Amino acid sequence: MNKKIIIYVLGWILNMEALFMLPPCVVALIYSEASGIWFLAVSLVCGGIGFLCTRKKPSNMVFFAKEGFVSVALSWIVLSFFGALPFYLSREIPLFEDAMFEVISGFTTTGASILPDVEVLSKCMLFWRSFTHWIGGMGVLVFILSILPLAGGYNMYIMKAESPGPSVGKLVPRVRTTAKILYGIYLFMTALEVVLLMIGGMSLFDSLTISFGTAGTGGFGIKNNSMAFYDSYYLQGIVTVFMILFGVNFNVYYLFLTRHPKEAFYSEEARAYLGIIGISILLITVNIYRGFGSVFAAFHHAAFQVASIITTTGYSTVDFDLWPEFSKGILVVLMFIGACAGSTGGGIKVSRVVILLKAVKKELDSLIHPRSVKVLKLEGKPIEHQVMRSINTFLGAYIVIFICSVLIVSLDNFDFTTNFTAIAATFNNIGPGLAGAGPAKNFSLFSPLSKYIMMFDMLAGRLEIFPMLLLFAPSTWKKS
Amino acid sequence: MNKKIIIYVLGWILNMEALFMLPPCVVALIYSEASGIWFLAVSLVCGGIGFLCTRKKPSNMVFFAKEGFVSVALSWIVLSFFGALPFYLSREIPLFEDAMFEVISGFTTTGASILPDVEVLSKCMLFWRSFTHWIGGMGVLVFILSILPLAGGYNMYIMKAESPGPSVGKLVPRVRTTAKILYGIYLFMTALEVVLLMIGGMSLFDSLTISFGTAGTGGFGIKNNSMAFYDSYYLQGIVTVFMILFGVNFNVYYLFLTRHPKEAFYSEEARAYLGIIGISILLITVNIYRGFGSVFAAFHHAAFQVASIITTTGYSTVDFDLWPEFSKGILVVLMFIGACAGSTGGGIKVSRVVILLKAVKKELDSLIHPRSVKVLKLEGKPIEHQVMRSINTFLGAYIVIFICSVLIVSLDNFDFTTNFTAIAATFNNIGPGLAGAGPAKNFSLFSPLSKYIMMFDMLAGRLEIFPMLLLFAPSTWKKS
Repeated sequence: MNKKIIIYVLGWILNMEALFMLPPCVVALIYSEASGIWFLAVSLVCGGIGFLCTRKKPSNMVFFAKEGFVSVALSWIVLSFFGALPFYLSREIPLFEDAMFEVISGFTTTGASILPDVEVLSKCMLFWRSFTHWIGGMGVLVFILSILPLAGGYNMYIMKAESPGPSVGKLVPRVRTTAKILYGIYLFMTALEVVLLMIGGMSLFDSLTISFGTAGTGGFGIKNNSMAFYDSYYLQGIVTVFMILFGVNFNVYYLFLTRHPKEAFYSEEARAYLGIIGISILLITVNIYRGFGSVFAAFHHAAFQVASIITTTGYSTVDFDLWPEFSKGILVVLMFIGACAGSTGGGIKVSRVVILLKAVKKELDSLIHPRSVKVLKLEGKPIEHQVMRSINTFLGAYIVIFICSVLIVSLDNFDFTTNFTAIAATFNNIGPGLAGAGPAKNFSLFSPLSKYIMMFDMLAGRLEIFPMLLLFAPSTWKKS
Repeated sequence: MNKKIIIYVLGWILNMEALFMLPPCVVALIYSEASGIWFLAVSLVCGGIGFLCTRKKPSNMVFFAKEGFVSVALSWIVLSFFGALPFYLSREIPLFEDAMFEVISGFTTTGASILPDVEVLSKCMLFWRSFTHWIGGMGVLVFILSILPLAGGYNMYIMKAESPGPSVGKLVPRVRTTAKILYGIYLFMTALEVVLLMIGGMSLFDSLTISFGTAGTGGFGIKNNSMAFYDSYYLQGIVTVFMILFGVNFNVYYLFLTRHPKEAFYSEEARAYLGIIGISILLITVNIYRGFGSVFAAFHHAAFQVASIITTTGYSTVDFDLWPEFSKGILVVLMFIGACAGSTGGGIKVSRVVILLKAVKKELDSLIHPRSVKVLKLEGKPIEHQVMRSINTFLGAYIVIFICSVLIVSLDNFDFTTNFTAIAATFNNIGPGLAGAGPAKNFSLFSPLSKYIMMFDMLAGRLEIFPMLLLFAPSTWKKS
């Protein structure tokens, strides 16, 4: 293990965090809030430590997969630790585990909150909460790689560990160029949403925070009743559309930009994703129609909730925990499917689900026709054996972590639906679950142990499991 | 598709069913019950149709995997259809779908019941219910193969499709010999349990029916409060031990009989199985200790319930739906793990779980040490690539069926825990779930649609999914 280079990377992370803390300072200045001082203080501390760690480039730049996974996992933990300090030091979130939970939920774009009343928070804290979504959405290390003149062949490892889904990182050979294009798309789409929301009459502050939450597929609301506060079909509709857009594989936009619209239109994953959304909205609309009285209202809220859950954003316009069990069941399934690989969303990812279903179909066919030979394909390209194996490993590790988490959380003795969906909502980086973890509830009632388990799950879910698992695996730290 | 040979096999199934109906007739005679006449009538009808179908051996004995899967699936459906008739015709179960549900639950050794009050059933019906467990436990087609002089190379296909778990059917090259040995073990262990229960003061009728339910890991009780009726540590303890014994891979007993005790002791699957049982009992005992006041009582009931759930039997001595959530959570996990492959139990099977966990561990290791090459092993033998693929397919199909079933059943609008555990309990052939499907409840309140879905799941679970899936796959019926 090359510890020096890990410390060097962590130093850059702290330098970044020092910068990230400045916008909330500006917000505090505008609204003359005293608590803004904590952002300045933490920013200075981060910058100081970061300066010490990055003063000297390590001589040995050897950086293998092991170093990549460990530095990704540690980066996110360090980022969260310092990110939680303003909440804790300002006493706006008095318990440290709650402050950590809130900020991890922010950076991992989960959006699960321990706050029973978000509206008492100062504006700069609300801004920071939503800003962490926006930072976390595209990954911090990728950002560093896109602006820093780091040399060496290790960039791919970091990007591989931090990007959501199995396929990203192969767009163009040069990581920095890719990252820049992706950030360009991200920035442009966020700005567009802000403008469209402001046209609908929303204030700049609200438009910004809500757009941050949409772009990162995070879902922290700045009102206690989330998006239900903005009782406007236009505003909620804009958010619906942008949630769906941010859940699409960014490759698709990349192909559009590089003038391959045909390939973009035929993206198998994006079509599967839109197909799942369409069918889910249809089924839920039929199922909840009676409760709303109007087909349009039912369709509107079904579309909002489906988009919010499958993209793992977690905004809500209604308390869907009160919907019929069939609709809730569909939402639970969507929680696990998640968004496209290479988007800002979480979950298992549509491409993994598609590949798994294709593999099952192929094996069943070969039972009937043992002599036929078929090749598994996605996006017209054969799926390598290695990809298949890593998907199976992912799924295996996913199930094991899921089960252990539900068991430990069940020590709090809430009902099964609460435990099951609380883990589903945090591990898949969604936010709200059902019952005791439903959209009208919050996570403050869970025990500290359960909260730490969920923090682990949020990080594991955001980093696609392996970095967090390897961080705690004894063999990672053995000398070899 | 060679339809003639399938009809021929189904004919033998009906001949067998004609025989199976005779013991309930005897019971009816002993207790002078008029409803026994229906067993005689159905027995004659089965025998008649069976005679017509098996009069002539088909000239074309071509029998591939496709025929194997289809005849297994159809055999079990035919067996269940005629097996349900006595319940229905005697009006002891007035609805046909309920009678089908009950008998499929019996043959598949599930033990889920739609009867709110089993004690009103006549003795011959109670006997038939439990007897179906015993018949279903070891598979009917394997039984036919072991006693009929059928020639040809197709036996392996049938056995492969009907036996639980991935490894059975390779014990000895000659299927008939294997089957005979397995039936010998099965018969001997059942008889032993009957004797031991009678020593404890249980009547012959009760001992027989309860032993049938234990041997088949079925779990139909003949009392409304299941095994709680026999309020004796000895009787409940005997059943605990035998449930665990019937959940062990029968290979282990086979090795003992063939004088390889060392290999038997080192069976990796059996040790994992006993390890899971031990840890679960320990955790639950600690968790429920306060409710019982005595460590021994807590241990006794924990052991009974753990054995009952992991072996997918489904007897209960207490209403474990009232236990703390942590204990219930462990039981839900055990529902999915299930017993050993090559036992009479259901579920995913311990060997599949062990292989999956090993595969995950191996892949994680290879992330840290990309250049190391390790071979996945079970019972000291390398796991073939084909086995790994078929396990992954099994798991994929399992998850898809599970999700679709939960969604359809949720149309009944029971709570999530009920829907989720009702499918877990039927698909894994256990019997009781939690909440509305808990041990103190029954399945009569579900809609007919939900009942048919659960019947499919019970059959799919018992036949290891593929035969039932292929039966409904269009490509199975295409001419090729």
